[in-house]
Amino acid sequence: MTIDLATTPICNDELGLLQGLASTRAIRRYLPEPIPEQSLRDMLWSATRAPSGSNRQPFRFVVLTDSDKAIQAKALIATAAQSIWNEKRTNDQYDKGSGSDPNSPKARMANVMQHYVDNFSEVPALVLPCLVRYRAPNPAEGASVYPAVQNLLLAARGMGYGGVITGFHRPVEDQLKALLNIPEEVFITCTVTLGKPAGNHGPVRRRPLPELVYGDTWEQAPGWAIDPPGTRHTQAGPPKGSKVV
Amino acid sequence: MTIDLATTPICNDELGLLQGLASTRAIRRYLPEPIPEQSLRDMLWSATRAPSGSNRQPFRFVVLTDSDKAIQAKALIATAAQSIWNEKRTNDQYDKGSGSDPNSPKARMANVMQHYVDNFSEVPALVLPCLVRYRAPNPAEGASVYPAVQNLLLAARGMGYGGVITGFHRPVEDQLKALLNIPEEVFITCTVTLGKPAGNHGPVRRRPLPELVYGDTWEQAPGWAIDPPGTRHTQAGPPKGSKVV
Repeated sequence: MTIDLATTPICNDELGLLQGLASTRAIRRYLPEPIPEQSLRDMLWSATRAPSGSNRQPFRFVVLTDSDKAIQAKALIATAAQSIWNEKRTNDQYDKGSGSDPNSPKARMANVMQHYVDNFSEVPALVLPCLVRYRAPNPAEGASVYPAVQNLLLAARGMGYGGVITGFHRPVEDQLKALLNIPEEVFITCTVTLGKPAGNHGPVRRRPLPELVYGDTWEQAPGWAIDPPGTRHTQAGPPKGSKVV
Repeated sequence: MTIDLATTPICNDELGLLQGLASTRAIRRYLPEPIPEQSLRDMLWSATRAPSGSNRQPFRFVVLTDSDKAIQAKALIATAAQSIWNEKRTNDQYDKGSGSDPNSPKARMANVMQHYVDNFSEVPALVLPCLVRYRAPNPAEGASVYPAVQNLLLAARGMGYGGVITGFHRPVEDQLKALLNIPEEVFITCTVTLGKPAGNHGPVRRRPLPELVYGDTWEQAPGWAIDPPGTRHTQAGPPKGSKVV
């Protein structure tokens, strides 16, 4: 029996909004379970409620699960991902310094990334959020698509799923467009992989709030920019000593 | 008595995550009430929980409320906003066709925008989400800042506030940088105004889901891309017949 989605509302909330914002981690390890169509509908519908400039809604989501083309698209990006990560692992010196200790945060992050790219072709769902341009490319155009991408990750979180944004499609963008009939002028803005987390969501780690929020003057935090109790901190970006590439 | 924010948790949720995603409208009319510092803290902390490439957290939020510099910054952008909107109102023909009926959606949208730009200098809070670049400018860099901007709007929604993203700062970007000591190489990615809504949040209007979500082939929706009951639709973008500028 199939469900009539036209009469089926979006699923009920099990999580609060602010709680969701604070605990949506990048999920890179998935259980080997397909995502039911109803859940995909709920996630993509939630994603497309995001704002865009003049409500033009120039975002289009290509959703790939288990068809022949989906398998080919995943394999294409998997190869690119492995190549990009291998280079980054060396350039960012993930295996040097504290990374030589397999229990260090650096080594654990490297292991998670290695597992992610090695298993990319098995991700339950691969989403390509695209932008149909109506202007020349510019750095601000992302304001009309990345809010929807964030909504997608948050909706997944709200439904017991998880995902992560990557740019691993870039080296194979032309092949992907040919495979999926994506017009040349469309911008594939990122990839999002989705599935049931093998690990857990939970509080995320960021820089202390006064480093991220300023008042009237650059680099001067207002008095109220104080982390609430329990906030977890982290360095910004890859391990120290890495090269920016 | 001031509150010790270091021992004060983020406020409790009154709204579910999926419910919030579906009902965060662009709020352009505000009650004339300042936003308490605790609420600003909660909103900005929630915003900065968003993901960014390699967790580099290159986003910086300049938050302007009622200082002399804040008043100057609001006035600068207000003038730019009025000029941009006047031109758009003409180019997009908001006052022609159905727009000549003051009760048409087109005329009501024009009125809301006119009110917004005319009162821009009075917005309770003006936020400039900035990107500290570590690479040459490119269209994908927004993936590390606009998710945080969307989190800011959603957090505001979750706390009884609301806001909207604009690009009205662009003509006065240099003056803003001089006023606020923002380094030249930093990208002011948009403006966000925030306050207590004079109107209401509620279900947003979008294009039908099969126009926004595709399967293996461009412009071909998967069978599950079906709007749930009660979904409200709208045209994409400005009124028909408008010029793309």
